[in-house]
Amino acid sequence: MSERTPTAPTSQIPVACRPGFADRLAPPYLAVIFTSQRRGRDEAYDATAAAMARLAAKQPGYLGAESARGADGLGITVSYWQDDASVAAWRQELRHASVRELGRERFYSHYELRVARVERAYGWDEEDGIADPMGPAGAGGTSRAAGDGICSGGST
Amino acid sequence: MSERTPTAPTSQIPVACRPGFADRLAPPYLAVIFTSQRRGRDEAYDATAAAMARLAAKQPGYLGAESARGADGLGITVSYWQDDASVAAWRQELRHASVRELGRERFYSHYELRVARVERAYGWDEEDGIADPMGPAGAGGTSRAAGDGICSGGST
Repeated sequence: MSERTPTAPTSQIPVACRPGFADRLAPPYLAVIFTSQRRGRDEAYDATAAAMARLAAKQPGYLGAESARGADGLGITVSYWQDDASVAAWRQELRHASVRELGRERFYSHYELRVARVERAYGWDEEDGIADPMGPAGAGGTSRAAGDGICSGGST
Repeated sequence: MSERTPTAPTSQIPVACRPGFADRLAPPYLAVIFTSQRRGRDEAYDATAAAMARLAAKQPGYLGAESARGADGLGITVSYWQDDASVAAWRQELRHASVRELGRERFYSHYELRVARVERAYGWDEEDGIADPMGPAGAGGTSRAAGDGICSGGST
């Protein structure tokens, strides 16, 4: 991993304060947005998706992921990464992962994949009270600031 | 909208080649990633979500959206925008939208909202054949290039 040049603060350790959320991450970091349409039911899918998730979580620079799929088979998985180098390393890992071809050969009819740089992030929780999710960065509330990343409560 | 300074090519007209996908968009553009946990069943949710979607679609610079929610109530909606100005205008619109407070008061227990700049985008379809979704931009395949945006087929 000599090519990796971490730039995010050390507080960027994934702290899953809430199940299903990759919260408490301080921008900037990268998001890999994977939107996919499943072809239909395939009993191998769940195990394969779990294997992919485990593989991603072991990668350097992995910060977390969020995933949802509706009854119509359309799903969105967003994985979060520390920097370009960690995304590039994940790409290389995928090239050697058999699970990747399974996605094309068996699971998906179509997918779109986007690599995006997260510039601002905001969170809101019913226990935290109101915050402006679209307010300017640094305006307070629960906008994510550098050095954030400490889970102040909630389930793990 | 005097503040708007469109930078994306005119080909950035939403062309929904496939239901549920905001595909055929050429980077750079912005992605607003909204991950939310619903509190429970609320018969007002569907109508409100539809109203929000219609409101977004009427905004200048709106390019499309993708959304999925699982049976556990965790959902991800990614809306795509032409530039920072169009995201800022959407924020202003939300400040006057009653549907926004409904989300906090009735529908969600927690949400995370991220504004990210899409730098690379790739698509794969079972009819198009294999493409490297994580390949370098401009490497061919079905990576999105400036001037893309023309739907070459598929349902609308």
